[in-house]
Amino acid sequence: MNDASDLREGNLSVPQSGEEAGAPGVLAPAVIAQFVASVDEGDRQQLLDAIAELHPADTADLLEHLPADAFRKAIHLLDKDLPPLAIAELSDETRLAALNEQTDAGIAAMIERLDSDDASFLLNDLAEDRRASVLARVSATDRAAIETSLAFDEESAGRLMQRGFVAAPVFWTVGQTLDHMRSVASDDLPETFFEIYIVDPAFRLQGSVPLSTLIRAVRDTPLKSIMKDVAVSIQREMHQEEVAYVFQQYNLASAPVVDEAGRLTGMITIDDIVDVIQEENREDILALSGVREAGAHQSVLSAVRARIPWLGMNLVTAFCASVVVAIFQGTIEQVVALAILMPVVAGLCGNAGSQALTVTVRAIAERELDGPLIGRAVRREALTALVNGVVIASAAAFVAAVWFQDVLIGAAIGGAMVFTFLFAGLIGILVPLAMKRFGVDPAVASPVLVLTSIDLIGFFVFLGLATLILL
Amino acid sequence: MNDASDLREGNLSVPQSGEEAGAPGVLAPAVIAQFVASVDEGDRQQLLDAIAELHPADTADLLEHLPADAFRKAIHLLDKDLPPLAIAELSDETRLAALNEQTDAGIAAMIERLDSDDASFLLNDLAEDRRASVLARVSATDRAAIETSLAFDEESAGRLMQRGFVAAPVFWTVGQTLDHMRSVASDDLPETFFEIYIVDPAFRLQGSVPLSTLIRAVRDTPLKSIMKDVAVSIQREMHQEEVAYVFQQYNLASAPVVDEAGRLTGMITIDDIVDVIQEENREDILALSGVREAGAHQSVLSAVRARIPWLGMNLVTAFCASVVVAIFQGTIEQVVALAILMPVVAGLCGNAGSQALTVTVRAIAERELDGPLIGRAVRREALTALVNGVVIASAAAFVAAVWFQDVLIGAAIGGAMVFTFLFAGLIGILVPLAMKRFGVDPAVASPVLVLTSIDLIGFFVFLGLATLILL
Repeated sequence: MNDASDLREGNLSVPQSGEEAGAPGVLAPAVIAQFVASVDEGDRQQLLDAIAELHPADTADLLEHLPADAFRKAIHLLDKDLPPLAIAELSDETRLAALNEQTDAGIAAMIERLDSDDASFLLNDLAEDRRASVLARVSATDRAAIETSLAFDEESAGRLMQRGFVAAPVFWTVGQTLDHMRSVASDDLPETFFEIYIVDPAFRLQGSVPLSTLIRAVRDTPLKSIMKDVAVSIQREMHQEEVAYVFQQYNLASAPVVDEAGRLTGMITIDDIVDVIQEENREDILALSGVREAGAHQSVLSAVRARIPWLGMNLVTAFCASVVVAIFQGTIEQVVALAILMPVVAGLCGNAGSQALTVTVRAIAERELDGPLIGRAVRREALTALVNGVVIASAAAFVAAVWFQDVLIGAAIGGAMVFTFLFAGLIGILVPLAMKRFGVDPAVASPVLVLTSIDLIGFFVFLGLATLILL
Repeated sequence: MNDASDLREGNLSVPQSGEEAGAPGVLAPAVIAQFVASVDEGDRQQLLDAIAELHPADTADLLEHLPADAFRKAIHLLDKDLPPLAIAELSDETRLAALNEQTDAGIAAMIERLDSDDASFLLNDLAEDRRASVLARVSATDRAAIETSLAFDEESAGRLMQRGFVAAPVFWTVGQTLDHMRSVASDDLPETFFEIYIVDPAFRLQGSVPLSTLIRAVRDTPLKSIMKDVAVSIQREMHQEEVAYVFQQYNLASAPVVDEAGRLTGMITIDDIVDVIQEENREDILALSGVREAGAHQSVLSAVRARIPWLGMNLVTAFCASVVVAIFQGTIEQVVALAILMPVVAGLCGNAGSQALTVTVRAIAERELDGPLIGRAVRREALTALVNGVVIASAAAFVAAVWFQDVLIGAAIGGAMVFTFLFAGLIGILVPLAMKRFGVDPAVASPVLVLTSIDLIGFFVFLGLATLILL
C-alpha cells in the first residue's frame, strides 16, 4: 500500500474483515492529520494534490472531519478549486459553512462545472442577494438553466431533474443515434446516463431505449422498434416523494421529466432519488420522536431549536395529564398504591400506542395503506391491541394484586389497561390515517395527539375505575 | 382513455393534480373489481390478458389488493404463468402465501425466468424439502447458480448479486466489445446493465466502463484507455448495509462483486440496493418503537408476536419504576401534589431521552458518527439537554409552584428535571454508541435501557429531592 492510492482504508484493496481493515467509508485518521498539517502550513498545492487523488464523496468526508478552524482555512485556500461535487455531497450545515467562507467568484466557478440540478441545489442555500451576485458571474446559458430550476418548488421533480440528457427523434436508426453521440462534444452530454429518450418532432416524449438495448442492436434498427413505453410520466411539478415512489415501484435507474404538454424537459437519475428516499426516511424517524432536524454538524442552538417545540408542547400536554390525576387526588390520598402503579399504566399504554403509530406511519410511507387494505389494517390493530392488552393487563393485574394484597387494585389496573390498550391501538392507526387524508404529514402531526390522548384516557380510566371499585 | 392502456390511473397520461387524477401507484378500484370478476368466473385467459398489459410491479400491486379468497384462486389459476418479477415484488407475507398456493412445477417455471439473485430470493422463503423439490425441476446450470447464491449469508453481497453481467478482457477495443455483445444470444446478457467490467486473463477485476462512455468512444479505442477504477471493491461476504453505503457514497447505479482473489463473480444493481436501504430504514424506525416487523398483510398473531416482547420487557421495567415510587410512599402520602406531577417529570424527561436516542441512531445509520465527530456529538447532546432542561424545567417549576402555592414543590420538580434532562441527553447518545461498539444493533438494543434508566432516575431524583426539601 502507498499513501497516494490508499487514502481510504480498504479502498480497492481486499479487507479481510470489516472491523480490522476498516470498513469502507472510514477515513484513516492519518489522512485527516496530514491534510490538517497541509492546511496549517498553508500549502495550497499539497491540498490540491491530496484532493485530486480522492473521489469527490471522499473529499466531502474529509472536509466533514476537519476541526472547525482547519475547515475554514482549507475552504479559503481552495475556494474556486474546490471540487463542486464534493461540496454538493456535504451535509447541510457543512455545505452552508463552506459557501459562507467562499467568495462569489469561487462559488460561480464551481457552479459552472455542475449539472443544473446540483447547481440549483447549492445556490438554494444562499440568501437572495448573494445568489444574484453569484449568478451574475455565471455564463448566460447556465444562469438561465439554474434560474428555471430554482423556479420550481424545492421538493419537486423540476428541482431534481438535470437538463443534460440524450434525446433522439423517433424516426432515427440506432446507427444515426450512435454517430450523433460520437460527434457531439462530450461537454454537451451528461457525464453518465443509462438510457436515451425518443421524441417526436414537437419534442414530445415517445419512449426510451436503455443503452444496454441500444448497444446490442444492429445499426439499421429503427429506434421505434426497440423503444419501450415510459412506465409513469413524471411531470415537473410532481412531489419528490411521488417521484421516489415511481422509481422504486418500477426499479428505475433514471427517468425523463416532461412539461404539461408532454414535452421532454429533463432527466432524473437514481442517485438523487436515493438521497430523497434517505431524506424522507430521516424526516419520518426524527418526526416520530419530535425532532425537526438533526445532523453531525448541527450547532447546540440549532439542536435546541429542532427539539424544544416538541418538548414545549409536551409540557402542556403533560400538565393536562396532571390535571386528570388531580381530579382523583382524594382517591390517591386514600390509596397511595394508585400513585405507585401510575407509571405502569402510562408507560405500557403509551408504548402500545406508539407501536401502532409507528407501524401505521411506516405503512403510509411505503404506500401499503389504501383501499381495502385500510379496513384490514384497522381490524388488525384493534385485535392486536386487544390480545396484547389482555395478556399484559392480566400480568400487571396479577403483580399489582399480589404486591398490594388487594384483588380490587388488580382489577382496577387490569380493566383500565385492557380498555386503554384498545383505545391506543385504534387511535394509533386512525390519527395518522386522518392526517394523511387531510394532507398533513402523519409522522409530524400524529404523535402529540396520539400520545397525549392515551395518557389522558389511561389515567382517567385507571383512577376513575379505582375510585368506583375501591372507595 | 381506454381500459387496456390505462389500467393505472395517471399511467402515461398527465395527471393535472395528484389528488383528483389519482397519484401514481394507486390502482383504480374498477381494475381490481374486474380482475376479481374474472377470477370468480375462472376465466384464465382473461386474467392472462389483464396481466400481460401490466408492468410486473403493477401486477404485484393488484395481487396485494385482492381479497384473500380471490388471491388464492388467482394464484391457482395462473400458477406457472404468474409473472416471476411480479411475485418477487410482493410483500413478504403475500409472496409466501403465493408460493404456498403454487405447485412445485409452477415455482420452477418462474425460477427459470429470473436472474439468480431474484431466484434465490424467492426460494429462500421455502422450507428445505420444498426448495429441493423445486430445484430438482430446474435446469442444472440454473440450479448450480441458485445453490451458490443460497450458500451466502442472507444479508450479504453474495445474495444480492446476479450472475448475469458483461465482462471484457482488458486488451480488447471498443469495437471488439460491441461486436461481441451483438453476437451473443440476448438470453446470455442481463436484461438491463449500465456498465461493463474489464478483467485480466485470470478474470481479476481491473476496472469498469460505463455504457455511456463506451457508446461515445470510437471503435478502435482500447478499453484500457477509457476504463475507470472501481471506487470500492465489494466482496461477496460484505454485509448488505455496507454495500448500500458504498452505493450511496459513490452514487453508483451498479457495482461488480469479486471473490477473495479479486476475480469478478457478479454484479449488484441499484434497484436491489434501494430495497436494502428501505429495509434497513424500516428496521430502525420500527425497532425504536419496539416493533420487530410489520407489513400490510401481517396476521394478528404475527403482529402480536412482533410487539409483545417489547411490552413484556416494558412491564418489568415499569414495575421497577413503581418500586422507586413505592420507596417514597410516605412522602407522597403527605404531599399528594407529587403524584400529580409525576406524569410531567416522566413524560418530559423520557421525551428528551428519546430525542437524543433517535438522533444518535439515525446518525449512526448515516455514518455521521466516527472519529472526532463522536466527541463533538456528545458535547452537543449534553449542552442541548442542559439548555432544553433549564428552559423546560423552569417552566414546569413555575407552573407547579403557582398551582400548588408552594415554591419548594417548584424547586423539587425544577431541580429534578434539569438533572434528569442532562442524564437523558447523555444516556441517549452514549448507549447507542456503546451498542454499536459492541456490534449490537443500536436501534434494537438501546431503547429499553435508555428509557428505563431515565424513568428510574427521574422518579428517584424528583421524589428524593422532594423528600429532602419538603419534609
